Amino acid sequence: MENFEDLGFSKVDYDREKRQGFPEVIYGEGKAIEHIGPIMGKLIDRHGKVMVTRLDAEKAEHLLGLFPEAEYDRISRILTVGKPELAFGGQVMVLAAGTSDLFVAEEAALTAEWMGCNVRRLYDVGVAGIDRLLAYRDEITRASVLIVVAGMEGALPSVVGGLVERPVIAVPTSIGYGAHLEGITPLLAMMSSCASGMSVVNIDNGFGAAYQAAMIMKLVSEGVHHESPIS
Amino acid sequence: MENFEDLGFSKVDYDREKRQGFPEVIYGEGKAIEHIGPIMGKLIDRHGKVMVTRLDAEKAEHLLGLFPEAEYDRISRILTVGKPELAFGGQVMVLAAGTSDLFVAEEAALTAEWMGCNVRRLYDVGVAGIDRLLAYRDEITRASVLIVVAGMEGALPSVVGGLVERPVIAVPTSIGYGAHLEGITPLLAMMSSCASGMSVVNIDNGFGAAYQAAMIMKLVSEGVHHESPIS
Amino acid sequence: MENFEDLGFSKVDYDREKRQGFPEVIYGEGKAIEHIGPIMGKLIDRHGKVMVTRLDAEKAEHLLGLFPEAEYDRISRILTVGKPELAFGGQVMVLAAGTSDLFVAEEAALTAEWMGCNVRRLYDVGVAGIDRLLAYRDEITRASVLIVVAGMEGALPSVVGGLVERPVIAVPTSIGYGAHLEGITPLLAMMSSCASGMSVVNIDNGFGAAYQAAMIMKLVSEGVHHESPIS
Amino acid sequence: MENFEDLGFSKVDYDREKRQGFPEVIYGEGKAIEHIGPIMGKLIDRHGKVMVTRLDAEKAEHLLGLFPEAEYDRISRILTVGKPELAFGGQVMVLAAGTSDLFVAEEAALTAEWMGCNVRRLYDVGVAGIDRLLAYRDEITRASVLIVVAGMEGALPSVVGGLVERPVIAVPTSIGYGAHLEGITPLLAMMSSCASGMSVVNIDNGFGAAYQAAMIMKLVSEGVHHESPIS
Amino acid sequence: MENFEDLGFSKVDYDREKRQGFPEVIYGEGKAIEHIGPIMGKLIDRHGKVMVTRLDAEKAEHLLGLFPEAEYDRISRILTVGKPELAFGGQVMVLAAGTSDLFVAEEAALTAEWMGCNVRRLYDVGVAGIDRLLAYRDEITRASVLIVVAGMEGALPSVVGGLVERPVIAVPTSIGYGAHLEGITPLLAMMSSCASGMSVVNIDNGFGAAYQAAMIMKLVSEGVHHESPIS
Amino acid sequence: MENFEDLGFSKVDYDREKRQGFPEVIYGEGKAIEHIGPIMGKLIDRHGKVMVTRLDAEKAEHLLGLFPEAEYDRISRILTVGKPELAFGGQVMVLAAGTSDLFVAEEAALTAEWMGCNVRRLYDVGVAGIDRLLAYRDEITRASVLIVVAGMEGALPSVVGGLVERPVIAVPTSIGYGAHLEGITPLLAMMSSCASGMSVVNIDNGFGAAYQAAMIMKLVSEGVHHESPIS
Amino acid sequence: MENFEDLGFSKVDYDREKRQGFPEVIYGEGKAIEHIGPIMGKLIDRHGKVMVTRLDAEKAEHLLGLFPEAEYDRISRILTVGKPELAFGGQVMVLAAGTSDLFVAEEAALTAEWMGCNVRRLYDVGVAGIDRLLAYRDEITRASVLIVVAGMEGALPSVVGGLVERPVIAVPTSIGYGAHLEGITPLLAMMSSCASGMSVVNIDNGFGAAYQAAMIMKLVSEGVHHESPIS
Amino acid sequence: MENFEDLGFSKVDYDREKRQGFPEVIYGEGKAIEHIGPIMGKLIDRHGKVMVTRLDAEKAEHLLGLFPEAEYDRISRILTVGKPELAFGGQVMVLAAGTSDLFVAEEAALTAEWMGCNVRRLYDVGVAGIDRLLAYRDEITRASVLIVVAGMEGALPSVVGGLVERPVIAVPTSIGYGAHLEGITPLLAMMSSCASGMSVVNIDNGFGAAYQAAMIMKLVSEGVHHESPIS
Repeated sequence: MENFEDLGFSKVDYDREKRQGFPEVIYGEGKAIEHIGPIMGKLIDRHGKVMVTRLDAEKAEHLLGLFPEAEYDRISRILTVGKPELAFGGQVMVLAAGTSDLFVAEEAALTAEWMGCNVRRLYDVGVAGIDRLLAYRDEITRASVLIVVAGMEGALPSVVGGLVERPVIAVPTSIGYGAHLEGITPLLAMMSSCASGMSVVNIDNGFGAAYQAAMIMKLVSEGVHHESPIS
Repeated sequence: MENFEDLGFSKVDYDREKRQGFPEVIYGEGKAIEHIGPIMGKLIDRHGKVMVTRLDAEKAEHLLGLFPEAEYDRISRILTVGKPELAFGGQVMVLAAGTSDLFVAEEAALTAEWMGCNVRRLYDVGVAGIDRLLAYRDEITRASVLIVVAGMEGALPSVVGGLVERPVIAVPTSIGYGAHLEGITPLLAMMSSCASGMSVVNIDNGFGAAYQAAMIMKLVSEGVHHESPIS
Repeated sequence: MENFEDLGFSKVDYDREKRQGFPEVIYGEGKAIEHIGPIMGKLIDRHGKVMVTRLDAEKAEHLLGLFPEAEYDRISRILTVGKPELAFGGQVMVLAAGTSDLFVAEEAALTAEWMGCNVRRLYDVGVAGIDRLLAYRDEITRASVLIVVAGMEGALPSVVGGLVERPVIAVPTSIGYGAHLEGITPLLAMMSSCASGMSVVNIDNGFGAAYQAAMIMKLVSEGVHHESPIS
Repeated sequence: MENFEDLGFSKVDYDREKRQGFPEVIYGEGKAIEHIGPIMGKLIDRHGKVMVTRLDAEKAEHLLGLFPEAEYDRISRILTVGKPELAFGGQVMVLAAGTSDLFVAEEAALTAEWMGCNVRRLYDVGVAGIDRLLAYRDEITRASVLIVVAGMEGALPSVVGGLVERPVIAVPTSIGYGAHLEGITPLLAMMSSCASGMSVVNIDNGFGAAYQAAMIMKLVSEGVHHESPIS
Repeated sequence: MENFEDLGFSKVDYDREKRQGFPEVIYGEGKAIEHIGPIMGKLIDRHGKVMVTRLDAEKAEHLLGLFPEAEYDRISRILTVGKPELAFGGQVMVLAAGTSDLFVAEEAALTAEWMGCNVRRLYDVGVAGIDRLLAYRDEITRASVLIVVAGMEGALPSVVGGLVERPVIAVPTSIGYGAHLEGITPLLAMMSSCASGMSVVNIDNGFGAAYQAAMIMKLVSEGVHHESPIS
Repeated sequence: MENFEDLGFSKVDYDREKRQGFPEVIYGEGKAIEHIGPIMGKLIDRHGKVMVTRLDAEKAEHLLGLFPEAEYDRISRILTVGKPELAFGGQVMVLAAGTSDLFVAEEAALTAEWMGCNVRRLYDVGVAGIDRLLAYRDEITRASVLIVVAGMEGALPSVVGGLVERPVIAVPTSIGYGAHLEGITPLLAMMSSCASGMSVVNIDNGFGAAYQAAMIMKLVSEGVHHESPIS
Repeated sequence: MENFEDLGFSKVDYDREKRQGFPEVIYGEGKAIEHIGPIMGKLIDRHGKVMVTRLDAEKAEHLLGLFPEAEYDRISRILTVGKPELAFGGQVMVLAAGTSDLFVAEEAALTAEWMGCNVRRLYDVGVAGIDRLLAYRDEITRASVLIVVAGMEGALPSVVGGLVERPVIAVPTSIGYGAHLEGITPLLAMMSSCASGMSVVNIDNGFGAAYQAAMIMKLVSEGVHHESPIS
Repeated sequence: MENFEDLGFSKVDYDREKRQGFPEVIYGEGKAIEHIGPIMGKLIDRHGKVMVTRLDAEKAEHLLGLFPEAEYDRISRILTVGKPELAFGGQVMVLAAGTSDLFVAEEAALTAEWMGCNVRRLYDVGVAGIDRLLAYRDEITRASVLIVVAGMEGALPSVVGGLVERPVIAVPTSIGYGAHLEGITPLLAMMSSCASGMSVVNIDNGFGAAYQAAMIMKLVSEGVHHESPIS
């Protein structure tokens, strides 16, 4: 039972890094300061660094009091202790369809960087002005993994997916109104995409997209052996 | 009460042409042959021609027996008596994202032609292969009105809408599966489009899109007077 | 890359006017003052005028400080710099079913005027008092394009659509409660309308309806050539 | 326990007539012939007549073999034994928006007649041709109760509701496609109607609407005493 | 054009009383004081009394300043000028399933009284304690029309509907949580009720139910002529 | 790896009886005969008996050929090999609201019997005829566990839940139409029930309800020790 | 009529304890202090104790003023007067998937304790770290009834359900975002679970789950007689 | 315009291989034999091989007549011409929760093999028997990419996602009933998963999951350069 520590309200998962490749990240929304603080402390003790996502400014201020070495980014609402270090070659490109989608795109970009990826941002390239996107076509095709963030009708990932031979992770956002259904519409649209090789994460889940991108870059970095495994 | 004729099960709307610019068109789905036949007869008597939409092959065969001069198109499922005549200049372009969307695109194209429009078809130009669409960019920008038919995630109208200064009428189709929800997903996505100047009709409603396109071309053809109307 | 300017968080689309016939309009909701201000500045430099939609009163006050020549309309929540000029003949009629739908109707009316249309407003003519609507039947039939705004069950566009030979653009509103589902119900109802020649835009999207109406009036104003285009 | 008879698979409710004013009616859909037959027999024994609704043609044929005095109506899919007798003055008007809605309208009309109402049918008076409806305005205002059947966007009840001082019972139908959601859209739209004094029954539930209409006519026929009841 | 008066933002419907039997009632939600005040004034001038529904306490206070003779009920949120007078015999019974549903039940009760009905209230008789309901069975069966208000699963109208031979108007409420979907669940459940002779109005629409009940009582009060009308 | 056997397409779970108290049951829907046959063989070898649910008549015929000792019940669509034996005291009561719900009620009843319960059936006791239900009130209150099956609006479990001090397991059925949404409406309604001590299983899942009932009866049969367990 | 007392706005159900085994519990949400206070008073008079659920801190403070002997728990939002007493042997285990689900888990735990159950809490054992759950496998299999609380995708009950031979009551929570649909997604997922012997209560309904668990423990405690009941 | 060939009904995308890394694959559902045949011919000419997915047995038989060298797999409904060749090291593991999910799992497995992946199948390891899954834990953690196919509540990917440090692609299936909503429930549940590093494709879209897996393996195979790209 040494792989996690039981705080009563929480069982801190020390084994996560070994099992999943990266230490546990704290999802801040809906958690009280009294819960986040101790978990942060435990994780810093163990891993020397920690990341908290979806943290509103008010809670962040409290935690900055407790952990003066922490840094807080207001757009992505991410708080970190400790610096990320570049671990992987290649490039994760984060594209955002509109200016209003930035808070999700930045959650993805900062998370990917935190996990060791080299990140390139390409923002406000929505499909209604396709020339803006195509102006960057060469760069887009050179990226290793593409995280494509879009609200409204969520069409950008389909267009990007058709331009590249690399995996595309689509992130629908809650930016839109009416028929957009707080993001359900772009989520379902991305699911129904005519582009192959694209998968989708939850609405506004920049973190999740970046996590998968980092896993892919880690796999690339570590490589695989050519003999087939036991079957 | 001379503007319509009461057949009991139906009130044939002779006034429609005067009121709405085009004679009544019969929606064939869910109507019995015993109902469609007499209404067709009345409308041919009055207008010299008639169009029936959403007519399955079996019913069409029966009606071809009754009206030997009729013609039936298996893809669009439209039956017509009498020939359309070109009435309007300019061009209505009908674009379809995929090969499977053709039955809707053809409903739109044939309806628009029937109503007097000059129609240009551009099929299988879905956004996952954006170069196929852009290869026709010049032609697209020259069209007067654009009907854009797409299933799956329904992204094509957004891209087209961003390329032109002309009205775009988007038609979601029932082609897709799973998260596509039989067309509800592209319908909502089109509604949420980031492209301006675009409006949407019901799923698979190629007829409705063509009807509005023809109304626009009719307005263009007739022109408007520059003095402002009574207000 | 001269067609747009990259501000980092945004790529200002100077090419829009050439491509789409009207300069870019700023959608104010969910954008920070720090983003809207610079984009406004760039667009005024380029086009001499600008329009911002969905701008709440608080942000408007800030922007009026930065751009003293700007004007703000509290009902439609539109801020403008520069005057619209009447460009097109004919008439765009904006109908609203109820008094509560005015904020959407005015967004449509002001946008259409801004884009050069001659606008006639006809408000509080919901179908439950059909005589109020029919009292204006002559005027309605003389309009060139009709924007019909309705909340609740969204029935007004169907009735209007049956009275005219001109295109009807239906706008569902978020006014209603319970089974109205914040506008999804009238949106779906308008989609399912029995009236031909009608298309629909997103909930509360008065701007989008006006944009399409202006595109139609522009097409009418410019006319088309009778020879058929390259095909 | 004399108020019902237990057949094992069913408890025949003899008390219904006393309790609810009309004998039990058998809902035929999803019931096997082996179940419907015995229940019919029991109810004929008790009440001298019986009505079965939602009965497909195949089952009807079987039952006509067992009960040669029965009559079956193919449009409404109602089978009856015994004749209805006119019991109530006034008039129940059944309006239908389109020809395809007739199967529901006829279920309502036949049920109301069976329950003793004087029925007036007014079919194919959908709102997209409002003049057809208004041609009957005088008659409509003279009806005692109005059952308004409509598919598509379900707008007819709102218009009728605004014309009369009598109760309107709206019946959405499954006739439509796409955004119509098999009748959910007109159901929700009718619920959201701007017309007062209107209530709604389930999709295609002509029977239920007629049942309530008959209850109202029964109440009118029996009258009420002017002194207030015990409270 | 004498049947209504055009205030620009509103067309006051003076004809409503003649056409629908009762004067126009003002729906207060989403309307500004600047709009409600003038419409109230016009209606008091014409009819000597007026009713405003869905009026929050703050707006009510303003209007009580303008119309000192007005009365405001905090539970139902109804404001009235002028007294209702008992016009109809018989009895409208308003049943509520739970204590939390009272705001809707009182909207129904006060509206029905305002329109001339004799009202009996029976509250907190939800089906999970069926004995509480059945303790009033005699009274329930003597009512002329029953308005049954229920949130949660909305089962009460089905039980009541099975006890009486009079019309039942069901009102789903927004009281509940989770799977209750803010009232959509009881709305759909009431629609699907196994009880005959029941119809449904929108969520929380106590006003609409009372309006229909009053129309029924008015019809009962006026009676019908036994000869059948023109057909 | 002795707890299950790998057939490639399936891993037969021999450990289930030890782990969950009852041997694995085969869910027949969507499985091919070629899959069901071998799994049945394995389970008969191990446990001497087997049960297959949701098996259509055609597949059943094939399997009766392979396993001549099997028995098939056409209403519940259950096929069994081997006899159930009464294991538990007390009584599981299965109530069904309507005759059309019998196929689900019988799935529950036969499953519960198969698992060793003493079952009492009480069918066609829907809430619209509450007296039929209350006629059995004494019996109902004596049951140990109650499985309440209802389609339409799904109100029966709420009424039953209010009558007893024993656990009620509610089963919504797919019997209904329109607003019933193929069972989603009663499912959500049962979830929102005002009766305490009630839980819900999936639409038509008579098997699941019976399984839980049997688990409860097994627990009752085995009893618990009064000292509290390790914590 | 001695079984309940009519306070006008409420009918206090004194009979509940005899009928359902436990005294009435007050659901605090949406009820005014003026309503809760008197009902509490009546129930304390009758039963010597009372429980109020879903009570926010502000109301709680008021009620603590009125009933100084009351206790309020901020996490579960439960207020109680009088102490629970251990009545039943065995153990109800309450499992929670995440730290954010604690408010629901504690509502369940405190309710079960109040009703006489011996409760074991096991929190933060979500399926993404399956080893944390399996570390407690022995304890889990020894529990008598298991209440499994989970937000997000709601997978925990399926895993637990496959480990035990005891009834599992699943509680979906409103903790999650986007595709989680405020708890509808885990609710539907739990309904669709592949684990047998599991039933589900409403979103966040820890109370309801505990109520059913207590009923089961009561049944176990009282036992059943082996002779079969009257049938 | 040399990158695609225009067949009128289709524009064959020869450029796809260069752009996306793999030749175009034909989606067979909803396409006529007359369309599939010629497209297959063109692609074989160009690439020497072709794959058609979602092809029913009847169409397959026709195509096997036209292309005798083709092979058809009845479970996955995939038709291929030409042999796949192992291109990538490492291993793509395809896990399926239940026997009924095999048709999707096989679509994934065959597609991945076709695209050059080394595939390991692990079927019938649903979470309700967690020991069956954990028996393969070592192998699971050694896989390079994991495709996890699950119907019902879709919980398997969450558990697998918590065991590995490699990307997990989740595929919801249409296997289930009732609350499962034809796959929408597991789709939304997977989206809401508490496991990090997981993304989701459309219902039954084994092809799409395999396509992304192959893209990842291709990236791994090709590697990346450590210097950061142009930015």
